[in-house]
Order: sequence, then C-alpha cells, then structure tokens
Amino acid sequence: MIKNTRYLQPIKTASLADQVESSLMEYLKRNKLSAGDPLPKETELAEHLGVSRNIVREALSRLRMLGIVESKKRKGMVLSEPDLLSGVKRVMDPDILGDETMKNIFELRLVLEVGMGDLIFARLNKEDLDILTDIAQREASDPKTTSLKVRLAYEIEFHSKLYEMSGNDTLKRFQKMLLPVFNYMMEEEAKLEKKPEKGNIDHFDLIETLRKGTPAQFRENMREHLTPHYVRL
Amino acid sequence: MIKNTRYLQPIKTASLADQVESSLMEYLKRNKLSAGDPLPKETELAEHLGVSRNIVREALSRLRMLGIVESKKRKGMVLSEPDLLSGVKRVMDPDILGDETMKNIFELRLVLEVGMGDLIFARLNKEDLDILTDIAQREASDPKTTSLKVRLAYEIEFHSKLYEMSGNDTLKRFQKMLLPVFNYMMEEEAKLEKKPEKGNIDHFDLIETLRKGTPAQFRENMREHLTPHYVRL
Repeated sequence: MIKNTRYLQPIKTASLADQVESSLMEYLKRNKLSAGDPLPKETELAEHLGVSRNIVREALSRLRMLGIVESKKRKGMVLSEPDLLSGVKRVMDPDILGDETMKNIFELRLVLEVGMGDLIFARLNKEDLDILTDIAQREASDPKTTSLKVRLAYEIEFHSKLYEMSGNDTLKRFQKMLLPVFNYMMEEEAKLEKKPEKGNIDHFDLIETLRKGTPAQFRENMREHLTPHYVRL
Repeated sequence: MIKNTRYLQPIKTASLADQVESSLMEYLKRNKLSAGDPLPKETELAEHLGVSRNIVREALSRLRMLGIVESKKRKGMVLSEPDLLSGVKRVMDPDILGDETMKNIFELRLVLEVGMGDLIFARLNKEDLDILTDIAQREASDPKTTSLKVRLAYEIEFHSKLYEMSGNDTLKRFQKMLLPVFNYMMEEEAKLEKKPEKGNIDHFDLIETLRKGTPAQFRENMREHLTPHYVRL
C-alpha cells in the first residue's frame, strides 16, 4: 500500500522528438561540425537512432527553425550558422506573451539602453552622428508630434539608430524584435490618467553628449532621458 | 533573352512546415487564446489547413519546443505560457555558435551588468546584501583563488547573485544561459600572453556601493570592475 504519495511524483518523460533533438545536437557538437558540413540522410539517422523517419524529420524541423541546420538543394541538410534569436523572434508578440514577461522585456530595454554607452563610443563616427541629428531635427520641426503615434515613430527611429551604432548585431536584432512589445507598452502608458512626465534630457542633449561627452555622461543622460519609463519599477 | 539576371533572385520558398507554423500562430493570436485553452485536434487542423497530419505534427512540435503549446494528459494540446528564451537556450553553446555571435554575447553581458543598476537598487534588501558579502568574504579567504577555475567560480557566483537581485526573471534566466559562453571567453582571455589587468573596483567595493551609494555610482563602479573585459572592444 502506498503510504505517502508525496514521493510519487509523475515521471517527466521527454518526448521522442525531444530525445532525438538532443541526440542530434550532441552529434553535431561532438563531431565539431561547422557551417556547411553535410548531415547524414534522414533514413540513416532514423536507423542509427532506432526511431521512425517521421520523428527524425520532426527533430530536424526544429533545428531548421532555430537556424542550426538548413536544406540545400542537391546537398540535402547541412549545418548552418545557428541563429541565437530565431526562437525569440517567434514568441516576441504582445498577444501571446504573459504580463510578467512583457514587464521583464520592457525593463530589459531600459537596462540595455543605459548600459550600451561604451559600445556606442567605441564605434562612433561623424556620419552616424549626422543621421541622429537629422532625426532629431525632423522631430523638432514636425507639427504633428502632438500625436502619440508620430512622437513614437521618431522615438523609435532615434533609439533604433543608437542600437545600430552599438555595432553589436545581436543587440541590434534583439531591439528590432522588441518593437512590438515596446509599442504596446508605450500605448499602455499613454492610456494612464496621470501621464508620465518627460525627462529633462532630449534627443539633442544625447547627441551633444555623444559629440563632446564620455560614456559615463551618456549613461547618466540616457537614464535621465528614460526617466518616464523608470517610474514603473 | 534575359538581359539582367540581377533582377532574377531565387524565390524564397517557405517550407510547408513553416507555413503551417505561421498559420497556427495567426490562429492562436486572432482567437486571443490564452494559457490553458485547448487546441483543435491534429486531424482537424490537418483537414482545415489542407495538409498532411505529419506536417501539422511537425509544426506543433516546433511550437511545443518554444513553449507556446504543451501536451496535457487527457486534454491533448493546450496553449501554454510561451517561453521567450527556450529557443535561445538550445543554441547557446560555444561549440555551435560562430565567433561573431560569441563576441556579441560577451559584449551584451557587459552592457547588461553596467545597465542593471537601477533594477538592483529598486529591489534591494539586507538579506541579499548579506549573501553577496558572504560570497566576497569566502573569495577573499580562499587560498585557491590563484587558480583560474576557482577565481572564475567566485566571479560567476557573485555576478549571478546580482542578476538575481535585479528581480527580472528574463534577465536572470538569460544570464544562466550565458554561462557556457562566458566561461569559454574567460578561458580564452586567460590564454592571452598579456593578461588583462584587474579593475580598481573589487566585489567588496561593489557591495559598499549598493549599501551606501546610488545607481549612478554603481554603474560607474561596475564599469570599472569590468574594465579588463572592455579592452577587447
């Protein structure tokens, strides 16, 4: 007779596709395969792993989705340069993410923009500064910035340019993925009864800091610029 | 005759599984389904989409991998709380990531740790500070810190605690995933002929800043602490 069911936890079984996926990843790593190297055929893999071809196809499909393998005409499956963010891209959607995750992502944006000063300074050039200035000038002279939508568009254009200037491709792509969440949160903020106050630092101030200041000054000015969003913490 | 082949780009065809995956995502979003809601049966989906059941299973398998759906006993497939990072976790491995991505990730870590000061301060409590102090004290009194491995272990323990103190679950989990890459890069640094110099700020200084300082001071001290890694920029 079972005395205490507390010790009878249901056994967590990985599905067959999970197991085959892990085996394939192990195989790729152990053999130190690199981009362009061919994979064994589906039938061969199925035979070696002792599973049906459908299961192998299912696992390969996952790896393809993550950019770990790709199908090449005539060459079959080959190893690809894996994409860190392709899985993130698929779920980054305000309609399917939970509130807690959304809040986390919004905070993450604040952390990244305050923290990326050194990267921007290390890769700074006049051309990029001119582009930033152009955005800020168009924003300042646009009569339609009373509309939230127009204001948001300039905000996104300016900050996207900063991510680009970080010279870090992963960071840049992550920011692009953040945009739907960012938009959603800004619209939520706009609905608040008490509108968050504007920070004391505007886009022109940030440009001036990049031209004549230091990474440390940039961090503090960016923090000040983002103050309205920090009130939510 | 074709005059200019420049305009004849190969057509990018999404695989059938890609298309079914997108359709299912559209379906989930449009119907505003939320966690726990059941999905139609595989056979039903196959019929509606006009594809084989295998293709539907393949697409569902991807969504399951991303944590968007899960299989429940007796209930079949239900919508799950999607996991932003499950795709990232799978590819975050020094053996399969390219050098450029590895460099990006390492930079990302510097950005996050310098930028997360405000989150840590917003959620600061005495208990966490005591835990940090304990780590720093164990590190200071350990005779084995001349070994890179031991030093790395303390470094990771201390910085992991800081991520935890940010109170941002996505950030915290992302850091855990970073560890293999972080380890790899530190070992690479250790192989350099000219060892990077230590920063002027140690773990005790960082704790003191958390106890008595401001987020701005924390940012600057963390930046100083991480100086050896910034020389790679």
